[in-house]
Amino acid sequence: MGRVTSRHKILRLDGAATSRRTDTLAAEEPLEIRVGGRTLTVTMRTPGDDFDLVAGFLVAEGIVAETRDLAGLRYCAGTDEEGRNTYNVVEAVLAAHVPPLDPGLQRGVWTSSACGICGTTGIEGLRRMSRHDVAADPLRITPAALYRLPGELRAAQKVFDATGGLHAAGLFTPDGRLVCVREDVGRHNAVDKVVGWALREGRLPLHGHVLAVSARASFELTQKTAMAGIPVLAAVSAPSSLAVELAEDAGITLVGFLRGEGANVYAHPERIDV
Amino acid sequence: MGRVTSRHKILRLDGAATSRRTDTLAAEEPLEIRVGGRTLTVTMRTPGDDFDLVAGFLVAEGIVAETRDLAGLRYCAGTDEEGRNTYNVVEAVLAAHVPPLDPGLQRGVWTSSACGICGTTGIEGLRRMSRHDVAADPLRITPAALYRLPGELRAAQKVFDATGGLHAAGLFTPDGRLVCVREDVGRHNAVDKVVGWALREGRLPLHGHVLAVSARASFELTQKTAMAGIPVLAAVSAPSSLAVELAEDAGITLVGFLRGEGANVYAHPERIDV
Repeated sequence: MGRVTSRHKILRLDGAATSRRTDTLAAEEPLEIRVGGRTLTVTMRTPGDDFDLVAGFLVAEGIVAETRDLAGLRYCAGTDEEGRNTYNVVEAVLAAHVPPLDPGLQRGVWTSSACGICGTTGIEGLRRMSRHDVAADPLRITPAALYRLPGELRAAQKVFDATGGLHAAGLFTPDGRLVCVREDVGRHNAVDKVVGWALREGRLPLHGHVLAVSARASFELTQKTAMAGIPVLAAVSAPSSLAVELAEDAGITLVGFLRGEGANVYAHPERIDV
Repeated sequence: MGRVTSRHKILRLDGAATSRRTDTLAAEEPLEIRVGGRTLTVTMRTPGDDFDLVAGFLVAEGIVAETRDLAGLRYCAGTDEEGRNTYNVVEAVLAAHVPPLDPGLQRGVWTSSACGICGTTGIEGLRRMSRHDVAADPLRITPAALYRLPGELRAAQKVFDATGGLHAAGLFTPDGRLVCVREDVGRHNAVDKVVGWALREGRLPLHGHVLAVSARASFELTQKTAMAGIPVLAAVSAPSSLAVELAEDAGITLVGFLRGEGANVYAHPERIDV
């Protein structure tokens, strides 16, 4: 794709001095996700790993849950002024056994680069039930293994150092081995890309894994963690009240402020091997 | 409202030691926005300044542009298990001269705590045209005035220090006087709250003002800046490629990495008084 970053001329201010230089920007472009020819959503994302993003989005929405539920993914229509394919429209083909989408669902809407729970109407639709039993996951992780995750995640980020503008999500084993890392301007897209990769690799549900994110832990990130069957969500920054509430209900160990040799465990601390 | 933060018992990890303590969390709850009895969107937000949030969301969506366009705002139905009003549903009443919403628009959908451009279908709907001419704004600001903004914003944040989980948006005059500050778990909500405050105070368009945000500058934040008629957006962190593109097109001076005595000017540097 080659569009993960772009170069741009800027005016640099340093105290009273100014200079002209070229800066590297994190790319942000709309991605339209279609199912059965119908627009399901448009999300603002960093191009790259688009098929993973679409697959992970469908998992988070509860539309697919296993590799066999997704029959195919392809780029389709969508051209710029010169008629070139923009690679900004992806069509997902569901397997024959997957029930068709409820046409009454109001989807086909904008989601932003930081939006993960778009596409369902009504407050009662806020919590989607995961088909995976996260609460029963026997995973345990030591504080020392937790402390290493942010550094491993950062080391694996290919783009962050160049732009300062990308979030990362990394999937780890409890002994700290990195399984998959993805980046995006939107933290929820980075998580979707990781989960979609796992779906496409036949690895869902992600029992026995830890998801580390370079961001705050919002409700929607916690929701995505539950939908993927991941028992531990570790965030370098703060969680929200609703994220904690959901983690408690869903059986997810929620770690926040994971920095240096310290962390806060907000839900299900029984998985921390102290 | 009193729900901007909540208290939660956590397990604190410090190296090999553990302790139990109580932590303060940034509150996140869904807010359903209705117009004419119909659900326009549900956004995840930090409770408080809800009427400002709704008014600002309507400005960003291009539904209202002046104070007289909005006839009223009120909390309506929405009760918890004990029948208490949740204050999570707000009904906006448009003035008689405002054209009714296009029923073909697919709205009534989830937006997240970091989602600002939900509610319109199709990529061609991505850029909404502002009724306000931002490009012609003669505002100029010195680097020294810019450098003071993050400190002023942080000092004005009532909640951040307690939770570490809230974004802030602050409206300033070019000489650095703080006009309005709002906080939220979602950076786009913080901006909506500021713009909605201005609409309700009869101050739109916000010619001659600077909007400072404690976050990255995404496409949607830049879009909201344009819709409010604000000529300068200053972010403490990185902008995305599409934010820069939109700022250039809309005539907005886009400042990023505003930290200490330095900043990058990504678009329309002619307003920087060097």
